[in-house]
Amino acid sequence: MTKERLYLYDTTLRDGQQTQGVQFATSEKAQIAAVLDQLGVDYIEGGWPGANPTDSEFFETKPKLAATFTAFGMTKRAGMSAENDDVLAAVMNAGTPAVCLVGKTHDFHVTTALGISLEENVENVSKSVAYMVAQGREALFDAEHFFDGYKANPAYALETVKAAFDAGARWIVLCDTNGGAMPREVYEITKAVIAAGIPGDHLGIHTHNDTEHAVANSLAAVDAGARQIQGTLNGLGERCGNANLTTLIPTLLLKEPYRSRFEIGVSLTALEGLTRASRMLDDILNRVPMRQAAYVGASAFAHKAGLHASAILKDPSTYEHVEPSVVGNVRIIPMSNQAGQSNLRKRLADANLSVEKGDPALGRILNRIKERESEGYSYDSAQASFELLAREEMGLTERFFDVERYRVISERRRNARGNLLVESEAVVTVQLPSGAKLTNYFKNEHADDMKDEGPVNALWQALKADLGPYQGIIDDVRLVDFKVRITNGGTEAVTRVIIDFEDGTGRRWATVGVSANIVDASFEALLEALNWKLAQEGARVAV
Amino acid sequence: MTKERLYLYDTTLRDGQQTQGVQFATSEKAQIAAVLDQLGVDYIEGGWPGANPTDSEFFETKPKLAATFTAFGMTKRAGMSAENDDVLAAVMNAGTPAVCLVGKTHDFHVTTALGISLEENVENVSKSVAYMVAQGREALFDAEHFFDGYKANPAYALETVKAAFDAGARWIVLCDTNGGAMPREVYEITKAVIAAGIPGDHLGIHTHNDTEHAVANSLAAVDAGARQIQGTLNGLGERCGNANLTTLIPTLLLKEPYRSRFEIGVSLTALEGLTRASRMLDDILNRVPMRQAAYVGASAFAHKAGLHASAILKDPSTYEHVEPSVVGNVRIIPMSNQAGQSNLRKRLADANLSVEKGDPALGRILNRIKERESEGYSYDSAQASFELLAREEMGLTERFFDVERYRVISERRRNARGNLLVESEAVVTVQLPSGAKLTNYFKNEHADDMKDEGPVNALWQALKADLGPYQGIIDDVRLVDFKVRITNGGTEAVTRVIIDFEDGTGRRWATVGVSANIVDASFEALLEALNWKLAQEGARVAV
Repeated sequence: MTKERLYLYDTTLRDGQQTQGVQFATSEKAQIAAVLDQLGVDYIEGGWPGANPTDSEFFETKPKLAATFTAFGMTKRAGMSAENDDVLAAVMNAGTPAVCLVGKTHDFHVTTALGISLEENVENVSKSVAYMVAQGREALFDAEHFFDGYKANPAYALETVKAAFDAGARWIVLCDTNGGAMPREVYEITKAVIAAGIPGDHLGIHTHNDTEHAVANSLAAVDAGARQIQGTLNGLGERCGNANLTTLIPTLLLKEPYRSRFEIGVSLTALEGLTRASRMLDDILNRVPMRQAAYVGASAFAHKAGLHASAILKDPSTYEHVEPSVVGNVRIIPMSNQAGQSNLRKRLADANLSVEKGDPALGRILNRIKERESEGYSYDSAQASFELLAREEMGLTERFFDVERYRVISERRRNARGNLLVESEAVVTVQLPSGAKLTNYFKNEHADDMKDEGPVNALWQALKADLGPYQGIIDDVRLVDFKVRITNGGTEAVTRVIIDFEDGTGRRWATVGVSANIVDASFEALLEALNWKLAQEGARVAV
Repeated sequence: MTKERLYLYDTTLRDGQQTQGVQFATSEKAQIAAVLDQLGVDYIEGGWPGANPTDSEFFETKPKLAATFTAFGMTKRAGMSAENDDVLAAVMNAGTPAVCLVGKTHDFHVTTALGISLEENVENVSKSVAYMVAQGREALFDAEHFFDGYKANPAYALETVKAAFDAGARWIVLCDTNGGAMPREVYEITKAVIAAGIPGDHLGIHTHNDTEHAVANSLAAVDAGARQIQGTLNGLGERCGNANLTTLIPTLLLKEPYRSRFEIGVSLTALEGLTRASRMLDDILNRVPMRQAAYVGASAFAHKAGLHASAILKDPSTYEHVEPSVVGNVRIIPMSNQAGQSNLRKRLADANLSVEKGDPALGRILNRIKERESEGYSYDSAQASFELLAREEMGLTERFFDVERYRVISERRRNARGNLLVESEAVVTVQLPSGAKLTNYFKNEHADDMKDEGPVNALWQALKADLGPYQGIIDDVRLVDFKVRITNGGTEAVTRVIIDFEDGTGRRWATVGVSANIVDASFEALLEALNWKLAQEGARVAV
C-alpha cells in the first residue's frame, strides 16, 4: 500500500514565541531552526517580518534550510491595495519561498475586531493571496477562528476559505485559535470543508491546547482528510500552547492507523534525536524540562508501581506502549517504598552493581530505604545517594575521609562606608584515614555587590578547596542545581535537600540530605556527592 | 431535557502517588481528600491498604467525606480462596464503602506477568468481586490493559469484564494502562463492550497521557456511552500522568455537547475554586505550578500577542473560549495597565485598602510588582508582602524598627564526650526610631539530641526575643510553614522563600523573601511578617 504524504509545519519561532516569558534572540532562532531542519519538518515559520526587530533580523540572515522557509503576516488592510500595504510589503520583502497569511473567517471578528464589512474582508483575503501567488510565492492561508466561525456562520466561513483557495493558496489552514473546539467538532467541520470543495490535501490544521485537545484535534482533522499539521516543539505557544509536534511526530511514525497510512518528512533515524531536540529547546529557554511530557519526558518511561516494575523486567511491552530508545529516551525504574526486590536488582544493575536474586543484601537495602524514606529521604531522583546506600549494605563502602567539624556563618552588617552587606564564610576540617587533618576556609569575595551566595555555597567551596590526595579526582565537580522542600520525617517537619552535580566529562548525578537544619541537610548532600565521585572513579583510600 | 448523571472517580491519592518524586504524608492525603470533597467528586480512592505504611495509616484515620471513600487492591491470587488471600483481606479490612480491584484482561499479561492459566484468571476476577459484594461493598473492577487486551484477543477481554459484571461489580472500568490507545479505538472498543452486554451506565474509563490523549480518550469513552471517568488532580500519575480532572471538570461543565447532556457532582460554584485547588496541590508537593495548564495555569488566559490583547479589550470572547473567573482564574494582559489596575483594586479592597480608580499609586504598585517579580519574588500566595508593598507606594508605611545587623552560625562538631552534634546560634541587633538599640541572642538548646532546627529558626528566635515596646504585639506570632524554591531572578538563580505565620487568634499570613543567600531571603520574609503584624494591629511607632 502506498502511503499518503502528510506535511508538518513548525511555528515554534512565531506562535511559540507567544508563550509567556519566551523571547528568542536571533541566534537562538537560528539554533532552533537547525534542530527542526535536522528532525525533518517540511515548513519552518521564522516569524513575522516587520512586526519586531528580532524577527526582521532573523529573516535577513537567510538561514540555509532543507525545509521550506516561511514568513508569517496578515492579509492586507481594507481601504488599500495589497501592493500598497506596508505591513504586507515587509512580509513579502523577507524573500521567503512561502508566505503564510492569517485572515478572518468568523463574521463576529470581522465586524467587532476589524470593524469592516464582511465583503471587504473576503476581498482582503482574496487579493492578498493572489498578490503573493503572483510574486511566485507558495501561499498559505491561516483561517483564524475557523471552527468558531463555522459554528456561528458556516456559509461565511466557507466563503472566506474558498476565496483564499480560488486565489491560489496552496494550503488552507483551519485554525482553532481560541483552543476551545472538541475533537468531534474538528472532525465534522473538516469533513464539511472538504465536502464544500477544498480537497483534503490542500487543508491544514492549527490547534491550541486550552482543553488539552491540541494533539487530538490535529489528528481528528487528519482523520477527516487534512494533510498538513501546524505545531511547535514542546507545545510552546500562546496561553496553553500549540499542538505539540514533539508528541505528534512519534505518534504519526509509531502508532496505528497513522504509521501504516502516512509518510512524513521525519525519518525513524531522526526520531531517535527527538528527546535531545526537546531538551535542547528547554536549555535555550532555561526551562526545567517537563518530567511528564509524552515520549520525551524524564518520567515518560519511569515505572514506579511495584507490580509494573516486576512485569517490565519480564517483558518491557507489558507496561510500555513504545520502546523508549526509538525516541531517544530511557527507561527508569525508580525506588520508592512501593517497590519490590525486582526494581531494586534492575536499578543496581544499571549502576553496575550486580546482586544475585535472593541475596540477603537486597532485603537489607530495601529496609534501609524504607527507613530513610520514613525519615524524609527520597531516592527517586537521588540516584547517587541510592548507590552509596546500596554499596554500604553490600560491604563495598570505602571510608575516604571523615568530617571533623564545619562551621558556617552568614552575616548582614554595615561596612566601613555604612553600606549594608551580606556575606558568608565557612570552615571545614576533614580527617584522612592516615590521621592527617585538613582545614579549609572560604569567604565570599563579592559581598559588596550583594551577590552573596549563602552558607551552602560557602560550605561547598571550603569542602572542596583541598581534599589532599583526592583533589585531582574531585576538582572538576560543580554544583548545578539545588532543590529544597519541607517534608515530614517521622513526626517532625524536616528539610530535604536534593543537589545536582556535574563533572568535567558532563556526567550528572544527584544526592539527597535530610535534617531539621537546612545547612546540615545540604552538607550531607555535598558529602555524598564527593564520596560518590570518588567511588565512581575507583579512588584508592589514602592511608 | 433531563441530564444524564456522569460520575467522577479521583485516584490522586493512589495512581497520582505513582508520579516520580511524589510521596504523600498521611496528613497531606487528608488535606487533598478534603479539597477533592469540596470540589464534589463522587469517589475518592485513598490508596492501597496494606501496600505501604502511609496508605494503611490513612485508612485508619477514617476521613469523613461526602464522596464515596474507596480502597484499591488487586484480585485474589491463584491457588487460594478470596477469603484466605491476605492482600485482599487488608483491602477489605480498611472498611470502606467501596472497593476497586484491578485485574488482568489481556491474555498476554495473564500468561506472561502472572504465569497462570486464562481460566484461573477469570475465576480470580469473579470470586474476588463476588466476595466484596457479599461483604456489602460497592465493587469496582479496574480492567487493566483492556484496550490492548481487546485488540489482541477480544473474546477473552470481554469474558473477563463480563465475569466481573456478572459477579456483581457496580462499575467495570476500562483501563488504557500503558496510555497508548487512540481516541477512535477507545470509542469503538467501548461501543463494542456495550454491545456485548455491559450497559454504559456501568462502564468507567481510566486513561493515561502517554500520547497526550488522556483527556480526549476519556471523553471518547463518554461519547460511546461510559458514565464514569477516573482521573487525578493536575494529571498526576505514573509516567506521563493520568487523565487530568482539573481539565475534564470544566470541560464537562462548560463545553458542548457535555454541558447540555450531563450532570456531574461538581457545581458551578465549586468550579470557581478549581484554580485554588490545583495550586494547593502544587503547594503541598512544592512543585512549580505549570503555567500553561489548561483552565488553571497562570498563562491560560494570558494574551501576549498584540492583536489578541487589543481585541480582548473590545470583547474578551474574541480570544477566550471560556471566561477565566468561572474556574477561579484571571486574565492577564501584559500590554494593558487598564485590565491590570482593576484586578489590583479588587485585591487591595480585599485587604481593606481602598484606592480610587485612576489613582497614580495603582500604576506605581503594578510597576513595583512587575519589577520585583522579574527579580524572583512572587505575590500569588504571599499576600502579607503584597500588602506591605502596596502600603509603601500608598505612603502608609510606618517604620517601626531597623535591623542593624544579624549574624547566624551553624556548626557541626564533637562535644566533650566525643559525640557529633549540630547547633545553630544567632544574634540580631535592631534599632528603634528613638535610637535605642536592642541586641538579642539565641542558641539552640537541644543540640545534643540532634534536633537542631537550623539557622532560620535561630534567627527567628533571636529576632522576636525582645522587640521592646512592640513585644506585646508580636509575642504570639509562630512560624508554621516554610517553602523554598530556586528560581530565576534576572539572569541569576536566586532562592525564593515563602513563610507562613500564625498568631494567637489563629489568623494566618504569608510573606516572601528573595536573595542568592537562603538565610538572607528567609530573614527578609521574617521581617516582613513582623512588620505586617504590627501594621495590622495598628501599632504606634515607638519614638
